[in-house]
Amino acid sequence: MYHFEEISGGGVASAQGFKASGVAAAIKYEGRKDVAMVAADAPCAVAGMFTTNQVAAAPVVLDRERVKTGVARAVLLNSGCANACTGEQGLADARESARVVAEALAEYFSNGGRASSRAVIPEEHILVCSTGVIGAHLPMDRMAAGAKMAVAALSPDGGPDAARAIMTTDLVPKEAALALEIDGRRVVVGGMCKGSGMIEPRMATMLAVVTTDAAVAPAALDAALRPAVETTFNRVVVDGDQSTNDTILMFASGVAGNAELTPSHPRWPEFCAAVRGVCDRLARMVAMDGEGATKFVTVRVTGAATARDAQLAARAIAKSPLVKTSWFGRDLNFGRVICAAGYSGARVDDQKARIFYGPVLVYDRGNDACADRAAAKAVMDARAFDVTLDLGLGDGEDTVYTCDLSYDYVKINGDYTT
Amino acid sequence: MYHFEEISGGGVASAQGFKASGVAAAIKYEGRKDVAMVAADAPCAVAGMFTTNQVAAAPVVLDRERVKTGVARAVLLNSGCANACTGEQGLADARESARVVAEALAEYFSNGGRASSRAVIPEEHILVCSTGVIGAHLPMDRMAAGAKMAVAALSPDGGPDAARAIMTTDLVPKEAALALEIDGRRVVVGGMCKGSGMIEPRMATMLAVVTTDAAVAPAALDAALRPAVETTFNRVVVDGDQSTNDTILMFASGVAGNAELTPSHPRWPEFCAAVRGVCDRLARMVAMDGEGATKFVTVRVTGAATARDAQLAARAIAKSPLVKTSWFGRDLNFGRVICAAGYSGARVDDQKARIFYGPVLVYDRGNDACADRAAAKAVMDARAFDVTLDLGLGDGEDTVYTCDLSYDYVKINGDYTT
Repeated sequence: MYHFEEISGGGVASAQGFKASGVAAAIKYEGRKDVAMVAADAPCAVAGMFTTNQVAAAPVVLDRERVKTGVARAVLLNSGCANACTGEQGLADARESARVVAEALAEYFSNGGRASSRAVIPEEHILVCSTGVIGAHLPMDRMAAGAKMAVAALSPDGGPDAARAIMTTDLVPKEAALALEIDGRRVVVGGMCKGSGMIEPRMATMLAVVTTDAAVAPAALDAALRPAVETTFNRVVVDGDQSTNDTILMFASGVAGNAELTPSHPRWPEFCAAVRGVCDRLARMVAMDGEGATKFVTVRVTGAATARDAQLAARAIAKSPLVKTSWFGRDLNFGRVICAAGYSGARVDDQKARIFYGPVLVYDRGNDACADRAAAKAVMDARAFDVTLDLGLGDGEDTVYTCDLSYDYVKINGDYTT
Repeated sequence: MYHFEEISGGGVASAQGFKASGVAAAIKYEGRKDVAMVAADAPCAVAGMFTTNQVAAAPVVLDRERVKTGVARAVLLNSGCANACTGEQGLADARESARVVAEALAEYFSNGGRASSRAVIPEEHILVCSTGVIGAHLPMDRMAAGAKMAVAALSPDGGPDAARAIMTTDLVPKEAALALEIDGRRVVVGGMCKGSGMIEPRMATMLAVVTTDAAVAPAALDAALRPAVETTFNRVVVDGDQSTNDTILMFASGVAGNAELTPSHPRWPEFCAAVRGVCDRLARMVAMDGEGATKFVTVRVTGAATARDAQLAARAIAKSPLVKTSWFGRDLNFGRVICAAGYSGARVDDQKARIFYGPVLVYDRGNDACADRAAAKAVMDARAFDVTLDLGLGDGEDTVYTCDLSYDYVKINGDYTT
């Protein structure tokens, strides 16, 4: 619908007014980047969305409160330790991490700490995100050292380092950025995320940070972020597990100099589409990089009685271990697809449903339609393919991104803490 | 509470008045038993419970109607083909299979078919169960031949053959039988089941047949079966997938000669306990034989705000791929246990919860309690162990049987149809 400029190699620091970094602080392992920072040159608008798991990690508890003000300066992220199920100590550790960042950033923006020009950065403007093992406490000496290193390493070119530092079992860093023009100004929306396991639709990627240099009112920023997340990150299913730490944050610096964006701005829909575009690119990368995944599968459900039914069916199919293993084995077992829809809670009549693997009709209202099994199996030879279930009952539609379930998922998750 | 005599080697034909058989009919593969029969010497009381998947297989559609009469004579079971998503043809095939059985049984019970003494067996008294690939039609010539062979092979010693013939990816046949005394008569309750994948709590084992020689009113038989299934088969979780074919049937021949059992009979609770005992033994075997399972895990949730919360939490833990793979890897990742409870829908406060692996406290209200990780990991060295989550909120309790998720689950399900 809209055409955006794709910024090659772009990410969370592509928008003006932001710097990023990623450093090695030995949070869990030696010699790998595990602390990241995204910082704005000045206080900026912020919006956030968080896990709906009742067991929320300490950083989630802290950030949920802090984003309510609509203003923030920076986020510190670490991998290797989730700081979840860590009680009062965990919350104190999250607060202390933010305090250390506020102090170090104040120093940084004071150009070396000359007392006369010292910047003041309230610790409430600092957000924190953690990912890694649940139940372990943050190693605070290394976190504090890492935070200071991350501040010192901040750079407009630091996006790739940051994206790498937040990886856990991810195989590839995940970054995207798009540009558009609003009010004669070039506006950039960019982001990074991590996540390849414990990915559940009701708030998908574990950690994501999106930035823009557009001027956006804080309330409007939230209004742009929510629908974008709903149809992207919230449509990614890897294993149906929902994390204690899922967080997506969006910052707007306003440096682009456009007239402040609100839903009444004539270019509002286009801006929202750009935000969605960045989230969609990141969300697809998450499914593509699902733990042990060998296939990226787009599950489409059409013809459902309602949109909600379409969503229920698509998620059940994407979560079913039996469906996912059949994709891994390139086994044309479409019965498992309709079976999953049948227990999803959606209205399903197997005598009205049709199933397609790619463009190939494999099941047609009660009949195996697969005259040419080779053609259907060839669809599954590709790294990425679509599976479509047409329920034949109405106009409800939904789409979910997912992956297969392989030996490597079991291997990766069988010895995670050790 | 009650003590029952365990009948060694007992199964679905241990109760008086029943015969069983299992034969090789090449439904999907040559040279393995794949058609089973359980038949009563005379019409008897019947009760049944079926999948709640909206996509129900043809045999389920047929049996659901037929058990409503409360009377049946026999059940024909096949593996290798589920006869699900097979439309009108599938239903016609199920009916035709039953008709063939009725005719062959009439012949059988007429001692060779002398016209003068020919037994009449209405085809409505014949039930059918199928398990195997969804979406394929029954090979009716082989089914009919198999049904006739199964009738010819009927024997009071045929229980083990029947239990073997209904296996799909099961590694072991599953049988159990208990005896008790009621009204001075010896009463036997026995059964068999199959199921190792596609096992979901809301109606667990794919196929189970339970028989008793007690005299039981049909309505009472249903009243005995439902609560027994609820706390046994319906508490088994292998992969969270729910089959199109799940069926449990119970027959009562009355040959034992006790006064007809109803809920007002003084020994009713004891009889119900025996039915539950047989179902419990079979259900545990299902979890123990979960596809690729190396561990049998009993998940107990205590201290929940409500019993329903306890059930939600226990099921979420038992279904979580991340929890299951950690058991496979004997990785003490208790954070995943509380995380799964957190998204289950149950009320959870991680600051009030405690987690035990076997008797070892590993997580204590916000703190890693695992001073001795070796002791906790040693618990997981056993083939079977308990994991207990005490939510610390109330009196709600529930227990679910499950297993780990291994490489072999992926292998088994990656090339099932081929």
